[in-house]
Amino acid sequence: MPGHNDLSNKCFKFRQMLVSPGLSFIMEAHSGLSAKIVERSGFEGIWASGLSISTALGLRDSNEASWSQVLEVLEFMSDATNIPIMVDGDTGYGNFNNVRILVKKLCSVGIAAVCIEDKTFPKTNSFISGMQELANIEEFCGKIKAEFANIWQNRCPVVIVPTKYYQTPTERFREAQIAMIIWANHNMRSSIKAMQDTCQKILKEQSLISVETKITSLDEVFSLLNYDELANAERHYLP
Amino acid sequence: MPGHNDLSNKCFKFRQMLVSPGLSFIMEAHSGLSAKIVERSGFEGIWASGLSISTALGLRDSNEASWSQVLEVLEFMSDATNIPIMVDGDTGYGNFNNVRILVKKLCSVGIAAVCIEDKTFPKTNSFISGMQELANIEEFCGKIKAEFANIWQNRCPVVIVPTKYYQTPTERFREAQIAMIIWANHNMRSSIKAMQDTCQKILKEQSLISVETKITSLDEVFSLLNYDELANAERHYLP
Amino acid sequence: MPGHNDLSNKCFKFRQMLVSPGLSFIMEAHSGLSAKIVERSGFEGIWASGLSISTALGLRDSNEASWSQVLEVLEFMSDATNIPIMVDGDTGYGNFNNVRILVKKLCSVGIAAVCIEDKTFPKTNSFISGMQELANIEEFCGKIKAEFANIWQNRCPVVIVPTKYYQTPTERFREAQIAMIIWANHNMRSSIKAMQDTCQKILKEQSLISVETKITSLDEVFSLLNYDELANAERHYLP
Amino acid sequence: MPGHNDLSNKCFKFRQMLVSPGLSFIMEAHSGLSAKIVERSGFEGIWASGLSISTALGLRDSNEASWSQVLEVLEFMSDATNIPIMVDGDTGYGNFNNVRILVKKLCSVGIAAVCIEDKTFPKTNSFISGMQELANIEEFCGKIKAEFANIWQNRCPVVIVPTKYYQTPTERFREAQIAMIIWANHNMRSSIKAMQDTCQKILKEQSLISVETKITSLDEVFSLLNYDELANAERHYLP
Repeated sequence: MPGHNDLSNKCFKFRQMLVSPGLSFIMEAHSGLSAKIVERSGFEGIWASGLSISTALGLRDSNEASWSQVLEVLEFMSDATNIPIMVDGDTGYGNFNNVRILVKKLCSVGIAAVCIEDKTFPKTNSFISGMQELANIEEFCGKIKAEFANIWQNRCPVVIVPTKYYQTPTERFREAQIAMIIWANHNMRSSIKAMQDTCQKILKEQSLISVETKITSLDEVFSLLNYDELANAERHYLP
Repeated sequence: MPGHNDLSNKCFKFRQMLVSPGLSFIMEAHSGLSAKIVERSGFEGIWASGLSISTALGLRDSNEASWSQVLEVLEFMSDATNIPIMVDGDTGYGNFNNVRILVKKLCSVGIAAVCIEDKTFPKTNSFISGMQELANIEEFCGKIKAEFANIWQNRCPVVIVPTKYYQTPTERFREAQIAMIIWANHNMRSSIKAMQDTCQKILKEQSLISVETKITSLDEVFSLLNYDELANAERHYLP
Repeated sequence: MPGHNDLSNKCFKFRQMLVSPGLSFIMEAHSGLSAKIVERSGFEGIWASGLSISTALGLRDSNEASWSQVLEVLEFMSDATNIPIMVDGDTGYGNFNNVRILVKKLCSVGIAAVCIEDKTFPKTNSFISGMQELANIEEFCGKIKAEFANIWQNRCPVVIVPTKYYQTPTERFREAQIAMIIWANHNMRSSIKAMQDTCQKILKEQSLISVETKITSLDEVFSLLNYDELANAERHYLP
Repeated sequence: MPGHNDLSNKCFKFRQMLVSPGLSFIMEAHSGLSAKIVERSGFEGIWASGLSISTALGLRDSNEASWSQVLEVLEFMSDATNIPIMVDGDTGYGNFNNVRILVKKLCSVGIAAVCIEDKTFPKTNSFISGMQELANIEEFCGKIKAEFANIWQNRCPVVIVPTKYYQTPTERFREAQIAMIIWANHNMRSSIKAMQDTCQKILKEQSLISVETKITSLDEVFSLLNYDELANAERHYLP
């Protein structure tokens, strides 16, 4: 069927990553472009980070973006790639009914997995200091039951996000039979550093010369975005 | 008034940049985050590049994004900053009536200026080789007249985009009394390079160690996005 | 300025309706079209009902639509009219910070007033039976203070929504010095009745004959939507 | 899978309507609500009219709404119903590439069929007098080929829209072996009439009394939107 998001295939691949014996890695992205870069680099899956997406939008990670605004970003990410995406679903954006709606919409844009936190809405980013109110346990279970009860049964693979304890050797995680590691926000953070450096250089030098050769060329941009496919299709379909 | 986009102020600043004697520079951005970085770096204005915005969305610069999808990106950029933004308005996304609607919407999200090209819809990026059909001159003038005739009168400051001829010394442009230079897509291109490098390193090393200290820290991310303001407001307004 | 939403003018008119001696009436709308009909009928203002907007979207009035989806509807309503619109802001869609963002966005699309309820998010429609949890008083005051404290001072005009007690003569409300009456959902409800009747007739008769002369003609539709203005502009701006 | 739009099922039903011997009827809708009303009335399919959707948004049928804005309306319509929807795809919103993107997106929101016109972008409504420029034949065929060539082969069922020649008895169309009749805009037009009447009555009488009993009751609204399902789910999933 034209344009069908092969969702069941993406879901299948993601479950394989979780339940197969080895350790899997997924890499953060926050836009169609960064998702494409993660895929081209060779990663098996993508982590759609809530912090990174809100940061890329210029917003704070406190539910300043609505769930439908986040969904639009996820749709671009899913359309740009063929590997599974796991989404940071925050608190689920409300109660069990909002979770049901969210999950239905995530499926329709081709997202393979979602992670729901037991915080209260609106959330605070985990790295911000201070007390964080956690969700009522029964209510939180209701959210999960509303969508996922039948699917997961008793399997509980462990997924970790070693952002703060990054110095622990990955070998330790492998020994502990961790199923998956999320590299949580490093594309966003490296893009900030690069753009800050580029801005400062160009502002100061009033010239592109020292920057031009150190950044991706326009030809590489066109290659990354498959302009060739469009040019071929134009020859085929335009008069 | 709460939340008012100070549009007339942004427009005023942008005209000053165009009509004042010196040479002005504006720097490309393609998201709320990159716009904020341009502003913090000290640039006076922002170029909302069509190529960069569509690339960031994972799309090609051939009107694959609808005008309202681009507008949403522009709204995040405008909300995140206080300096004027000039937008790459492509062909205006249709005829004079579409231009009228576009300009009305750009104003309502706080965009200070727009650049309309004399190509036909849907457009092809200028750096793609091959013939490009240009718009009928009369129709193109109609588009411009529909919104801007009274405003600009006879003033014609020249704005250039030296992406390909970047080796020309800026001094030459100054001598030629150019009013404004647009650094057109270098934030997008430097972010691609940085994310590709980061992905490759993390994928290969299965570790964050060699990346962690070379990218923006989480504290810097929180500072860039003004998390302090939110924490202060929480003390003030939460019970 | 082209396309500027004359927000301060709309706000001024709305305050006049609230603080002037007489009784004012505003009528529900839920779309660009229904808002236009309210304005053309001669009402002074529009009530953008949460129940009606979610019903028109095919959703339930329990925050199934995100705040940004509702905002898009409001933008169409505001663009289609020149009289002030008061919005049903539900619970404010989160805490004080979400209220701040909402109010900023309402201003940018030209909404003159907003009504925030002391329920908890996600809300339940008031006419649904059963207990409804009300917001913590201090937190609710924080939401209001975050945006409106300086503006309203001590003036407290009373606004009522006599949906259930519609048999009370309007004269009673006038005597009680009520400032404004909201006719809350009657456009939505009359459109449902009309569409149900039309569907049933056409389905049964397999013909348009008995319906055609009882509904608005296409010419009236074109007149309501100002197709004349577009035709004139085409003569002016197209080659 | 939770929330999966049963698109292939909807497509199958729609093809059955086209290729089965008898005459089928589909009824116009322009919102989630009106689509639900069409389904509940007993129609087999829905016509998502471009004129009706733009009118409901308060816009003119000249591509004033972007394709992604129309898509959002279609998504609400599809989510609210289980019968197939055929969409008025206008000119396809650009060239063959825009058609490809549109069709991919229509599939992902669960639309069963699309009708593409051989007009040029931006379009004019067919009932507006004056010359209308038709698309270049070869370019138009390219658009169609880009998505549909393999699927339809040589079958050509005829679909008609008897809006202007509504007095022709349906029996004539049956004899001519027409496959499908589209009742093209009568829900939108009947809703306008009803809302205009309601507004005028309430404005004049300053009372709801003569309107209240002639429109859909709130209880019927809640029943139409399945509030019962939500109440049941709340008992199940909330603590």
